[in-house]
Amino acid sequence: MLENLPATMYWDAEEGCLQLLDQRKLPHETSYLACTTSEQVCDAIATLGVRGAPAIGDAGAYAVALWALSERPADDELFDAAFEQRCTQIAAVRPTAVNLSWAVEKCAQYARELRAGAAALDEVAASLLELAHQILAADKADCKRIGELALPELEQLVAKLGRPLRVETHCNAGSLATGFYGTATSVIYHGFAAGLIEKVWVDETRPVDQGARLTAWELMQAGVPCTLICDNMAGSLMKAGQVDMVVVGADRICANGDFANKIGTYPLAVLASHHGVPFYTAAPESTFDRSLEGGDAIVIEQRDPMEVRCAPVSGGNWQLIAPEDVDVYNPAFDVTPHELVAGIFTENGIVRVR
Amino acid sequence: MLENLPATMYWDAEEGCLQLLDQRKLPHETSYLACTTSEQVCDAIATLGVRGAPAIGDAGAYAVALWALSERPADDELFDAAFEQRCTQIAAVRPTAVNLSWAVEKCAQYARELRAGAAALDEVAASLLELAHQILAADKADCKRIGELALPELEQLVAKLGRPLRVETHCNAGSLATGFYGTATSVIYHGFAAGLIEKVWVDETRPVDQGARLTAWELMQAGVPCTLICDNMAGSLMKAGQVDMVVVGADRICANGDFANKIGTYPLAVLASHHGVPFYTAAPESTFDRSLEGGDAIVIEQRDPMEVRCAPVSGGNWQLIAPEDVDVYNPAFDVTPHELVAGIFTENGIVRVR
Repeated sequence: MLENLPATMYWDAEEGCLQLLDQRKLPHETSYLACTTSEQVCDAIATLGVRGAPAIGDAGAYAVALWALSERPADDELFDAAFEQRCTQIAAVRPTAVNLSWAVEKCAQYARELRAGAAALDEVAASLLELAHQILAADKADCKRIGELALPELEQLVAKLGRPLRVETHCNAGSLATGFYGTATSVIYHGFAAGLIEKVWVDETRPVDQGARLTAWELMQAGVPCTLICDNMAGSLMKAGQVDMVVVGADRICANGDFANKIGTYPLAVLASHHGVPFYTAAPESTFDRSLEGGDAIVIEQRDPMEVRCAPVSGGNWQLIAPEDVDVYNPAFDVTPHELVAGIFTENGIVRVR
Repeated sequence: MLENLPATMYWDAEEGCLQLLDQRKLPHETSYLACTTSEQVCDAIATLGVRGAPAIGDAGAYAVALWALSERPADDELFDAAFEQRCTQIAAVRPTAVNLSWAVEKCAQYARELRAGAAALDEVAASLLELAHQILAADKADCKRIGELALPELEQLVAKLGRPLRVETHCNAGSLATGFYGTATSVIYHGFAAGLIEKVWVDETRPVDQGARLTAWELMQAGVPCTLICDNMAGSLMKAGQVDMVVVGADRICANGDFANKIGTYPLAVLASHHGVPFYTAAPESTFDRSLEGGDAIVIEQRDPMEVRCAPVSGGNWQLIAPEDVDVYNPAFDVTPHELVAGIFTENGIVRVR
């Protein structure tokens, strides 16, 4: 069913570069960014060419490897300090999603161990590339498990309703946000394949419109029936009994189950609670940041005001809608408290947080 | 304070036409549509060149007058039947807002009375034009009263908080939606002038973005501090205690206080209730349709799917964002139950419905 979905990224051994599907140009153009430097990967992460917490972790690992392969100082003695500095820079490109810093730190730790064992720099670089491959492969495998292990929960909901589910999702916690399968969409792909899901309501997800540009496109590629809505239409759909379940992704999950996700997730959770619709998030274990007790500790990025003043039209361009000089509030994420969450689908099964 | 706000519409006596501010081109171009026929007015209403329940009532009255002035049948004996038919057509251009059918029926009733008194058709036409002028003037006066009579309620909220209010509004229940002042914005303009309002959060209001294109522009013209947000950001703002009050317009209010308004109003009311933020609507009495007991009886228009697939960029054009063939749900309105409404600001004072 997923054979028409292109890879989010792959290592191009012939060209020695990371090929990143340029998500700014979807759904109207499918093209890859050939990244030969860590800077190019960081640029793609910063400008949402690649986005989604697990995918930017994968890309971050390749950024570290690319730096070690081709950008490291000519003088070997300068390597260790420069490496640490570069890792810190790469991890800081997007601060909210824990996966990026998690993957970069995993690479850094591995390099430190190799260096402690007096490994040559060529060997360190090759090993870091191998580790990036492993991180990407593990991401794919984890995503697959997230969907597989969600099936019993979907079966229970279906048994209660007596019919397949109409599921709402927000943003793109999709195959495009991960190595493959996605997190929320893995639940959807597996549920649909098992006959447990009838259709999907896709929130467009302003301001960057990942739902309209990515999730709708991705579900259509996969043959899952879906209907696009504006974010402000979820309330009346729920009131009309048209939504049986909500499943979204997560960018960072606290020890108590509070989680940060794309702006608009929290109001969706409040609406779901108001209408008795079960609300889930789906994320790999690497999204948990148990050093944070609760959602108040999560730092929320403010993004460029032009995203709100404009809309992301075809070809990765932004076109002005509002007055050019209007004041704007543009948080990238909001925080959903665990009390509103029926469960977290992970690669190790469902986590209950209330 | 409002001297920089252009008129929504005015009768151009020299050209014998209704000049309608073309709201599809705001905020980047201020131009008027010169309407010499009822068809042109109906087109402007259907395509949102003029929009907002009271304003389309005003425009509808001018459409009836224009028909009688210059489009009536050459044969006077055909007038009455053709007039009734044309009135029915004009009233049907937008079915949800009651103001259009209210204004058209008022004109039709007046014409019937004149005809019963054997008035000549030239006299009927001139009288209908005079009536349209009166309807527009009454709309402006009503809007002014809505804002004036809301002040005691705002004073109470300010007294409770000990500081001026941060008010959220949705869509454009603005001067641009009426003859002048607006409904929700009349409350805002009067509250701001009285020092009771500090600033306004403006929902962009997808899919047609009346908040981003019209309300933000209008408030900036009037010198009221405002910040534009995407519709899905209201939840986290309320959670952070940044919203003290919500005031929106209404397109049709039922006998029990349930009301239809722009899609996204209902979820905003649920969020306000969840966060203890008082939620108001503002509308002239003509918006009440007491023949409808409750919100379930309100017919909701479905609009063109391309509105959701696209965004309304500069110059009144729409640009594609989503896959061109994606399935879409695009209701123009939703219904907010009276239980969520703290009060309805009208030209006769505040109406309590819970």
